[in-house]
Amino acid sequence: MVTIAIIAAGAMGSGVAKVLTRNGVKVLTNLDNRSEATRRRAQEAGMQDASFEDISSTCDWVLSILPPSNAFSFAEKFLQHSTRSTRSPAPVFVECNAVNPATVHKIAALFRGSIFSFVDAGIIGGPPLDDYNPTFYASADEEALLDRIVGLSEHGLKISALKGEARIGAASALKMSYAGITKGTTGLFTTMILAAHQSSPATAEALMHELHASQPALLKRMSGVIPPMIPKAYRWVGEMSEIAGFVGDGEGDIYRGLSELYARIERSEKGDRQDSEVLAKFAKEAKEILEKK
Amino acid sequence: MVTIAIIAAGAMGSGVAKVLTRNGVKVLTNLDNRSEATRRRAQEAGMQDASFEDISSTCDWVLSILPPSNAFSFAEKFLQHSTRSTRSPAPVFVECNAVNPATVHKIAALFRGSIFSFVDAGIIGGPPLDDYNPTFYASADEEALLDRIVGLSEHGLKISALKGEARIGAASALKMSYAGITKGTTGLFTTMILAAHQSSPATAEALMHELHASQPALLKRMSGVIPPMIPKAYRWVGEMSEIAGFVGDGEGDIYRGLSELYARIERSEKGDRQDSEVLAKFAKEAKEILEKK
Repeated sequence: MVTIAIIAAGAMGSGVAKVLTRNGVKVLTNLDNRSEATRRRAQEAGMQDASFEDISSTCDWVLSILPPSNAFSFAEKFLQHSTRSTRSPAPVFVECNAVNPATVHKIAALFRGSIFSFVDAGIIGGPPLDDYNPTFYASADEEALLDRIVGLSEHGLKISALKGEARIGAASALKMSYAGITKGTTGLFTTMILAAHQSSPATAEALMHELHASQPALLKRMSGVIPPMIPKAYRWVGEMSEIAGFVGDGEGDIYRGLSELYARIERSEKGDRQDSEVLAKFAKEAKEILEKK
Repeated sequence: MVTIAIIAAGAMGSGVAKVLTRNGVKVLTNLDNRSEATRRRAQEAGMQDASFEDISSTCDWVLSILPPSNAFSFAEKFLQHSTRSTRSPAPVFVECNAVNPATVHKIAALFRGSIFSFVDAGIIGGPPLDDYNPTFYASADEEALLDRIVGLSEHGLKISALKGEARIGAASALKMSYAGITKGTTGLFTTMILAAHQSSPATAEALMHELHASQPALLKRMSGVIPPMIPKAYRWVGEMSEIAGFVGDGEGDIYRGLSELYARIERSEKGDRQDSEVLAKFAKEAKEILEKK
């Protein structure tokens, strides 16, 4: 029987765990200092509480699924509490977080000389739900590891291995590029609606009508992606900074600016909600215009 | 008979002139120190060469249609050569360039106390062609001026006045917001394709396939907007800087980064064309995937 640890039991982690337990996999997690809500989520997903020591000595796989800013510190702490063993094949640590390839390389370096093999992964899509499964893209420095992780498909996960010249860092680069396009365009829309509105409400309204006339597909996307972004913006602040680090100097400024934009939306949500309301109103009116024939 | 001056006889200026001369308007321009190609374009559009002195004393309208970096210096120079007159209604200077509202306010200040009234305009769309006409959005501090400029529709132009609380700066803000969305998203796509490819060609290929599976509308847009951007990128460097100024601190970094991105594409086009080729190949393959059923 395959045993897999998933840290932590967040929305994504517990969703993935549910798929695995439904497919007969034993799933461990660590619930030290976790909230009641997290413990309930873990229980509902069939996850069992275990210490890092137990996880390291019994699991075939450890999936790190955390907020990006916790990825490195968790890996470090987990390794400190790992027990040495000579199991074969070696257990695999899978770094699944939305961190930039440079951070992944730093985390991979921690595992060199440890009992763990290391796979870089990037999850594209939201948590599993009903028939829907996000894709785990994986890259590694040894091809045999990729074959092993693709084997997890038998337990209900959707895995895609990056082959060719792809090494550690490639899966994270893919995740960064994809989020840079999807969450990046949403950020541009947001920035421009707010800037137009700041000029005058009439400017924002004219922008909507001009987009409707000349770029209806873009307006449709704007009306769809903005409302669900508003409550999640706080989570994207760190992800945009990771992407800025991935892109590097020069164009990296684009994502430093997008990180500031999402921080602004986070402040609005916690504060006077003025920006949030301008955005929600724009999206609602755009939808109405688009639905009018 | 209405007399309109258009400075300069570029692709947009001569295209607009052609519409006007076809509709019985006398169109002047100034061809001092202009190239043979520009002179030919002006002639084909039915534009007549005239000094700034003649233009200021005979024209009802002066449309400034220039690269953004020339907008202020042209306005200054034109005013220095204007002859004073007491014509009524006063001739109108229409600032049509893709400059940020702060620059428009500086240009508007030059005209205070001159013989000219001042209208802020932003042209959205490409040069007129066959039945196609771009839209001139206009804003002004006096509503009567807006009624006058809307009157130019009788001569074949497409004019839309921003009313309500919109003042000088609003039309430029609209132009900035629109370009910030259209040219901004193209810049994000470009940045991410190059970053993914730099990680490894396999990463860029996986990005394309994932977008095809989960974001086909975005991939379709990418395949369509990237090839025509490559040879025009050099013109967008300054426009992105104007938008950065419009947005201001914080999120303005997004557009400072996009200006650097387009400068990179300009360097690639003039240099080894490596980035240009990566982008063209991605767009071509994306198109092929999208067309395969």
